[in-house]
Amino acid sequence: MARILVINPNSTQAVTDGMDRALEPLRFSGGPEIACVTLADGPPGIETQAHVNAVVAPICRQVAERDDADAFVIACFSDPGLHAARETTTKPVYGIAEAAMAVSLTRGERFGILSILDGSIPRHARAVRAAGLSERFAGDVAIGIGVTGLVEGAEGPGESEVMDRLVAAGTRLRDHHRADVLILGCAGMASYRTPLSKSLGVAVIDPTLAAVTLALGL
Amino acid sequence: MARILVINPNSTQAVTDGMDRALEPLRFSGGPEIACVTLADGPPGIETQAHVNAVVAPICRQVAERDDADAFVIACFSDPGLHAARETTTKPVYGIAEAAMAVSLTRGERFGILSILDGSIPRHARAVRAAGLSERFAGDVAIGIGVTGLVEGAEGPGESEVMDRLVAAGTRLRDHHRADVLILGCAGMASYRTPLSKSLGVAVIDPTLAAVTLALGL
Amino acid sequence: MARILVINPNSTQAVTDGMDRALEPLRFSGGPEIACVTLADGPPGIETQAHVNAVVAPICRQVAERDDADAFVIACFSDPGLHAARETTTKPVYGIAEAAMAVSLTRGERFGILSILDGSIPRHARAVRAAGLSERFAGDVAIGIGVTGLVEGAEGPGESEVMDRLVAAGTRLRDHHRADVLILGCAGMASYRTPLSKSLGVAVIDPTLAAVTLALGL
Amino acid sequence: MARILVINPNSTQAVTDGMDRALEPLRFSGGPEIACVTLADGPPGIETQAHVNAVVAPICRQVAERDDADAFVIACFSDPGLHAARETTTKPVYGIAEAAMAVSLTRGERFGILSILDGSIPRHARAVRAAGLSERFAGDVAIGIGVTGLVEGAEGPGESEVMDRLVAAGTRLRDHHRADVLILGCAGMASYRTPLSKSLGVAVIDPTLAAVTLALGL
Amino acid sequence: MARILVINPNSTQAVTDGMDRALEPLRFSGGPEIACVTLADGPPGIETQAHVNAVVAPICRQVAERDDADAFVIACFSDPGLHAARETTTKPVYGIAEAAMAVSLTRGERFGILSILDGSIPRHARAVRAAGLSERFAGDVAIGIGVTGLVEGAEGPGESEVMDRLVAAGTRLRDHHRADVLILGCAGMASYRTPLSKSLGVAVIDPTLAAVTLALGL
Amino acid sequence: MARILVINPNSTQAVTDGMDRALEPLRFSGGPEIACVTLADGPPGIETQAHVNAVVAPICRQVAERDDADAFVIACFSDPGLHAARETTTKPVYGIAEAAMAVSLTRGERFGILSILDGSIPRHARAVRAAGLSERFAGDVAIGIGVTGLVEGAEGPGESEVMDRLVAAGTRLRDHHRADVLILGCAGMASYRTPLSKSLGVAVIDPTLAAVTLALGL
Repeated sequence: MARILVINPNSTQAVTDGMDRALEPLRFSGGPEIACVTLADGPPGIETQAHVNAVVAPICRQVAERDDADAFVIACFSDPGLHAARETTTKPVYGIAEAAMAVSLTRGERFGILSILDGSIPRHARAVRAAGLSERFAGDVAIGIGVTGLVEGAEGPGESEVMDRLVAAGTRLRDHHRADVLILGCAGMASYRTPLSKSLGVAVIDPTLAAVTLALGL
Repeated sequence: MARILVINPNSTQAVTDGMDRALEPLRFSGGPEIACVTLADGPPGIETQAHVNAVVAPICRQVAERDDADAFVIACFSDPGLHAARETTTKPVYGIAEAAMAVSLTRGERFGILSILDGSIPRHARAVRAAGLSERFAGDVAIGIGVTGLVEGAEGPGESEVMDRLVAAGTRLRDHHRADVLILGCAGMASYRTPLSKSLGVAVIDPTLAAVTLALGL
Repeated sequence: MARILVINPNSTQAVTDGMDRALEPLRFSGGPEIACVTLADGPPGIETQAHVNAVVAPICRQVAERDDADAFVIACFSDPGLHAARETTTKPVYGIAEAAMAVSLTRGERFGILSILDGSIPRHARAVRAAGLSERFAGDVAIGIGVTGLVEGAEGPGESEVMDRLVAAGTRLRDHHRADVLILGCAGMASYRTPLSKSLGVAVIDPTLAAVTLALGL
Repeated sequence: MARILVINPNSTQAVTDGMDRALEPLRFSGGPEIACVTLADGPPGIETQAHVNAVVAPICRQVAERDDADAFVIACFSDPGLHAARETTTKPVYGIAEAAMAVSLTRGERFGILSILDGSIPRHARAVRAAGLSERFAGDVAIGIGVTGLVEGAEGPGESEVMDRLVAAGTRLRDHHRADVLILGCAGMASYRTPLSKSLGVAVIDPTLAAVTLALGL
Repeated sequence: MARILVINPNSTQAVTDGMDRALEPLRFSGGPEIACVTLADGPPGIETQAHVNAVVAPICRQVAERDDADAFVIACFSDPGLHAARETTTKPVYGIAEAAMAVSLTRGERFGILSILDGSIPRHARAVRAAGLSERFAGDVAIGIGVTGLVEGAEGPGESEVMDRLVAAGTRLRDHHRADVLILGCAGMASYRTPLSKSLGVAVIDPTLAAVTLALGL
Repeated sequence: MARILVINPNSTQAVTDGMDRALEPLRFSGGPEIACVTLADGPPGIETQAHVNAVVAPICRQVAERDDADAFVIACFSDPGLHAARETTTKPVYGIAEAAMAVSLTRGERFGILSILDGSIPRHARAVRAAGLSERFAGDVAIGIGVTGLVEGAEGPGESEVMDRLVAAGTRLRDHHRADVLILGCAGMASYRTPLSKSLGVAVIDPTLAAVTLALGL
């Protein structure tokens, strides 16, 4: 039976647990196994370009060594090491930002990104341009909460505050930037997808779900 | 249990049967049902803009009336009635050309399209521009065989000739146009996907498979 | 003597009458005849993608059967059946949205579109991208009045209210979106062109006039 | 009665005479007068950027002083002084390259340019980019004959040789660059339009005709 | 020793003096001489397209006649005669707008332009498109002061008012248009570069400095 | 006195020595010091995405620790760690690929890249798109020689063979892809710049020289 290995490149197990739960609907009894692993030597959250680069080598090691996996998903919205990993293996490797942008093209005219921090926005701008998708990009709004602050039970702002800020940022993307499909710009936001979509009346893409879905097609 | 309805808008049952077989790997015991229907009042093959427009109303009727379906796939590479169908229902509707282009972004830098006939090329050019994907588009080469000619057992050129022409066109896309991922530009080419990918050493996307995969993610 | 056939694909005769009047300045004694016809089996107004598709076949029939015409203008801003009609005949066929965008490039740096309803905006966005004109597109603002509401004497908001809303939307396009040429996004707005242009101090393009002008050049 | 003033900015009267003849079909008994003037102090042909700039001031003087004209056409494919002239008057001013590119959008998917000399190609490349039309641009091929060589009776290569080279260049644009509409890249090529279109089976745009047609719409 | 000739195409000596002072940091004892000249027959400030075109011929004369120069910089943000000058000589010729946009790509994600007058904005829009840089362009805001008003001691608004308006326009570009690098859109603003950069916390490019820097690399 | 630190991220001292010699013309007696360092823990040549990522952390350490430097140049054509380094310091950091593309915009209409190996081409394609420069990009041709093979005295193909291949690839870029300015796609090709430019008659950009030139402007 095929196995899709989802690599959370930050070391926060609660983030891995969250995505593991979010992927449950894609686990079919006859379908591929979907396994999530935490990169022990990653930073608690990937919030800077230096964090991005630091996890590339350990990600590539995983990709090279895990003979039991048939496809890989790098579950961080900065797609760290995506192209390095693709050079490491002939198996398919998905980055969740790239996958989310691709999937969003089939759910609306213009995608908006819900970022965690303002500092992510220029990084995403480069990613959108590198993907050649500027014509479909509506805008990017940050909610001002770091990766670890998103985790349930963390000493962060709490779920209700996270939701409020996502609704505010999503409203701005929908009404001011005219986005009609939103992308959660972090692997740790999966639990907010359904309520946010209901609240705003537009499709919301969880990037990890998007990437694992694409991997199912192999 | 969820049901994905795949609508073949041409009336050639053999084309429907071919895509039905090709979708087998996406049928998981615990997963959504994937049902393929033939549009009885469609033309034998959709090869002109007039054919495209003629099937819009019957497609929209299917979408409106089939309460038992949770998502729809319009299985013709011209994406006939895609936007009309989306206005007809709040359920997700996928067009296979749009889906194939989206999925191709995660499998290579530049996608090439293998068309059936020369007359399809301007139509595809408009679709690529409308999708805002010109920066990722390598080129489009036709094999000179119509939809019904692709069907096994038809009075067409035969499987071996179809394969030869696909290899020749794919080689041109790979070497001259520098495509590193190819899209089969017709719903009736699914059986050639794996041998073509092996022969050319690049990923090959079957558009119906791409669209149904995306539908699984819901 | 040459004849240009202008097809109004909605069944509202008052819309046809309005465009007929608006085309008067292009009727030269030695020039081509400009004839306007109403598509009897069209909907009262073309306001959805389904309406667009419904009129394609009757438009193509007109184009195929009217041997007495030398060029065709499809007078609906969604350009229904434009490419299907072009496959039907070797005579020139013009779509008024395509023509208006083309002509606008010679009258300003950035064109804005005055739409009737919010629902038209995504359809126009696809049309702008499909035309490859995103770099010249400033924005799109709707006035919130349907096709039939534009017609004089209709039970709509009345001419003065239509004009007020056009001025408000045009001001937003000019000042916020920095459009310096405006396109009337419906065949039924022709009578507002001159007063609107005077009020806003920018060129205003009536799309039917634009298309018939282009047809004169043949 | 309205008057359209067509300014040939080179001093070669035979070029003016040629465009005058080519515009005959747009002279309708009840329509605007179409008058062609030669810029006495222009160079014999506009073949360099320096030529382009040299004629700007005299063109602007014509535009400022000719109170009897209602619209102006600058009949040189480099559109010399187009934006300067537009600042000089509130009347419409058309450049023939800009007009030809605009009109070509309604006659095919991808336009190709038939240039006189290789040195024109980078200038046209800038013009296409400045117009924001790169997505519709197929390519540019030069025939290697200067402006004065195009004129009938000149000591140039002769009509038959000009035609042969236009057919060869047009064939390359159609088959290699996949252009499906061609633009004559010089005001002095008008007489070749119809035979070239027949020979190649694609629409051919004469830029002066395109610009005067647009002026008729006012 | 090499010599870079900086040509101020307006006749205002105070503008030349200002750029001369601003270039002081690039004068190295062992490096190229940097000489600034005023175009005696230029207008006091280049504020219209007609001004732009009027200085082309005298600029080209300078470029052709100054055998003692090894590289040329045309120090006006409209890059008048840039391409004509390049046809005149095989030596490198830099336009300060083109140079500033190029250099800005290495200092931020999105460049904004600080213009002198509203009338410059469409001219800049064409320049950005002609340069193929629309994807990196954030916006353009004018301060409402002409060239001669920028000069110290002039009967203009005074340095403090100029600075206030630059800060206001720059703030708008940074916060509303999301520019992270700003370009001074006039050769006469050099003295404001450092204080403006400090005030706004983003890199600010003086275009003349940018062009002379590039010339040093030869 | 200011100091520009040029970091060669591969461990091949001969590459550092070559760029050191090539930068000699930019060392002015009164100008900034230009110091070149070799990254001891880098790979011999940076030829894969994994190599790129491996040197990011050591580059960032250099940038963080070298208090004596006022600007940094990362002298590898993959711009490894460019954005990470920019987050590490407020001093300017230049990547040589980004700098070379920027500078090329001022020397020609369309830039071509001379790559070392075929495997670099998709990486460059992403870089061109991420830079938003697709409209100015002509093409990319590899010479089939790795970094260490370029070094004089190495056990590579020898200088004369390298030159022959550069001429062949450059000719293809100039004549087939219509590039009119070429970029050396590796920091180790500097010594070929002048002879190649003479041989081909187009400007050739050495990327390290381009980046250091830009750094001089600070």
